[in-house]
Amino acid sequence: MSFTRVAIVGLGLLGGSIGLGVRAHRHGVVTTGYDSDPQVRARARDLGLVGTVIDDPAEAVRQADLVILCVPVGAMRQAAAAIAPGLSPGVLVSDVGSAKQGVARALADTLPGHTIIPAHPVAGTERSGPDAGFASLFHARWCILTPPDGAPADKVADLTEFWQALGSTVEVMDAGHHDMVLAVTSHIPHLVAYTIVGTASDLEQVTRSEVIKYSAGGFRDFTRIAASDPTMWRDVFLHNRDAVLEMMDRFMGDLSTMRSAIAAGDGDAMFDLFTRTRAIRRGIVEQGQDDARPDFGRGDHDRENAA
Amino acid sequence: MSFTRVAIVGLGLLGGSIGLGVRAHRHGVVTTGYDSDPQVRARARDLGLVGTVIDDPAEAVRQADLVILCVPVGAMRQAAAAIAPGLSPGVLVSDVGSAKQGVARALADTLPGHTIIPAHPVAGTERSGPDAGFASLFHARWCILTPPDGAPADKVADLTEFWQALGSTVEVMDAGHHDMVLAVTSHIPHLVAYTIVGTASDLEQVTRSEVIKYSAGGFRDFTRIAASDPTMWRDVFLHNRDAVLEMMDRFMGDLSTMRSAIAAGDGDAMFDLFTRTRAIRRGIVEQGQDDARPDFGRGDHDRENAA
Ligand SMILES: NC(=O)c1ccc[n+]([C@@H]2O[C@H](COP(=O)([O-])OP(=O)(O)OC[C@H]3O[C@@H](n4cnc5c(N)ncnc54)[C@H](OP(=O)(O)O)[C@@H]3O)[C@@H](O)[C@H]2O)c1
Ligand SMILES: NC(=O)c1ccc[n+]([C@@H]2O[C@H](COP(=O)([O-])OP(=O)(O)OC[C@H]3O[C@@H](n4cnc5c(N)ncnc54)[C@H](OP(=O)(O)O)[C@@H]3O)[C@@H](O)[C@H]2O)c1
Repeated sequence: MSFTRVAIVGLGLLGGSIGLGVRAHRHGVVTTGYDSDPQVRARARDLGLVGTVIDDPAEAVRQADLVILCVPVGAMRQAAAAIAPGLSPGVLVSDVGSAKQGVARALADTLPGHTIIPAHPVAGTERSGPDAGFASLFHARWCILTPPDGAPADKVADLTEFWQALGSTVEVMDAGHHDMVLAVTSHIPHLVAYTIVGTASDLEQVTRSEVIKYSAGGFRDFTRIAASDPTMWRDVFLHNRDAVLEMMDRFMGDLSTMRSAIAAGDGDAMFDLFTRTRAIRRGIVEQGQDDARPDFGRGDHDRENAA
Repeated sequence: MSFTRVAIVGLGLLGGSIGLGVRAHRHGVVTTGYDSDPQVRARARDLGLVGTVIDDPAEAVRQADLVILCVPVGAMRQAAAAIAPGLSPGVLVSDVGSAKQGVARALADTLPGHTIIPAHPVAGTERSGPDAGFASLFHARWCILTPPDGAPADKVADLTEFWQALGSTVEVMDAGHHDMVLAVTSHIPHLVAYTIVGTASDLEQVTRSEVIKYSAGGFRDFTRIAASDPTMWRDVFLHNRDAVLEMMDRFMGDLSTMRSAIAAGDGDAMFDLFTRTRAIRRGIVEQGQDDARPDFGRGDHDRENAA
């Protein structure tokens, strides 16, 4: 990897995991870090998420040859403006935001003349903050780079190598296509999970305590996703509006079709859908993107004989 | 437990787990079993899911003091008819079907004069069939009994004790209320998961291979649920139609509200929902109905430092 000094701005789940990942996988690379929250900086120091935590954003990036912005999508512009005075001319600026077209625009506007290659590691958990990070977060996960037209090929190669060193497989795609793909595979699932948990919280017929007790019937899986960080997700929906609305309309249309099938007692239509959906699960398990054990192998009922 | 001879009809995930659970937790109780599928019977014999697998349904229940029907909800009537000739007068007939009003009617119609107390252990995985069962499936899970008016209190107590012996906590409720609660905590989540996976399978803009690759962003959790047995779930939606439609209309209304918030760029409405949904997750984890570790503790990216 040709980067020797990496600066991380935002020391939460993503920033912390990158810092720990670099330490675990790339001895000799120097890391610095900054977070706008003094408490997060203090915690990051205690945990050793990066080599040096610095209290000033411009100073934190001063000697870096790679800067990675790991802040919520809506904070990218502000974070970029804060580091701008410290950036050296040859630096590569990247980020990990979950929506790419909006971030690409914000960074290009704010940092004219700098080389910018946005990225999105498709890896995460429902936890956030400096205590949530771990070095293997990116292992066996995809990282999508969305270089703008004319991005220097050598920098794309360097950034590819960086993410590979953290354990990821890298794919390059257009930012617009990224936003459409992630709308389906991440943003709509989160929105649906948040909504269904909201619906269940507000019923007159069924109490919250009943919802909690009987959640093992399927609902609990949605609550995990719906425990994700509100700021992060608000920003995603504000910054990937068009793709999300397009996918949402498809989904809502399909849901209406299923509603009609249930109302009509059309068992064949249900059986057909419920059979078709198995192929994708098989693909996900085969490609190592999920744990094949029942219940994802979670151990909450001390299973003895699970395959 | 006052039952000494338990007959299990349907030797898949639920029936097999009950058989194994009785063997693990209740020495001296004799179990017999029947399944309409000869291959399942053969496999159940090999695996020792029950003490004796019998090829004839009426024979299988002949000496039982408890019979538990563990077949899909839509097969309950037929299974009850098949065992009717073998039932002894004092037997208690129960079941594990995921919808209760319809099953209660089917069993009452088909087995007049017998004591029937329907039940629903709120425990399961996405796997089905005789190989899917394990003795601890019911540990730390709720089991709901829905005794009809006038059900003998001693039999309710005996059945309660039976499920407690398998590791469950028992709750008694009205069948109609059960169907409403489970519509929210299980049936709608399954329908939504099946639908979203269907939507993602059929897009022009995003390929199936992309959906699989980038599923770690949230989608993969839905595919697990959407890999559940199609026959079981078709039957659930055919037999709990009214409650499912009622809850679905609530959910679809809430989804439209969120759609409007996204279209309007109303970040506050989003932030509000995304914050409210965290309380239920906390309750579920606190009450031991889910694994608190990130990603449910699944080990698919060999996490080192997860809390
Ligand atoms: N979580 C995931 O699963 C996941 C996966 C892939 C990509 N991403 C993306 O990764 C980015 C970070 O997410 P995360 O999960 O790591 O969030 P996080 O754990 O909340 O960390 C973000 C950190 O950035 C800080 N911050 C906010 N504004 C800042 C600014 N202007 N300058 C410096 N620091 C600032 C935050 O401090 P305060 O909290 O005090 O504001 C917080 O400590 C987001 O863009 C998200 O879309 C997340
Ligand atoms: N899976 C869950 O998570 C879960 C949780 C709680 C309750 N339940 C309920 O438990 C019941 C069983 O579900 P399961 O997951 O155990 O399904 P399963 O693994 O598919 O087992 C059901 C078994 O019953 C057999 N069967 C079908 N019709 C029959 C009949 N008339 N007589 C005898 N055997 C018959 C099936 O054979 P064939 O497959 O060859 O037809 C199959 O072997 C369902 O009512 C379901 O709603 C399921």
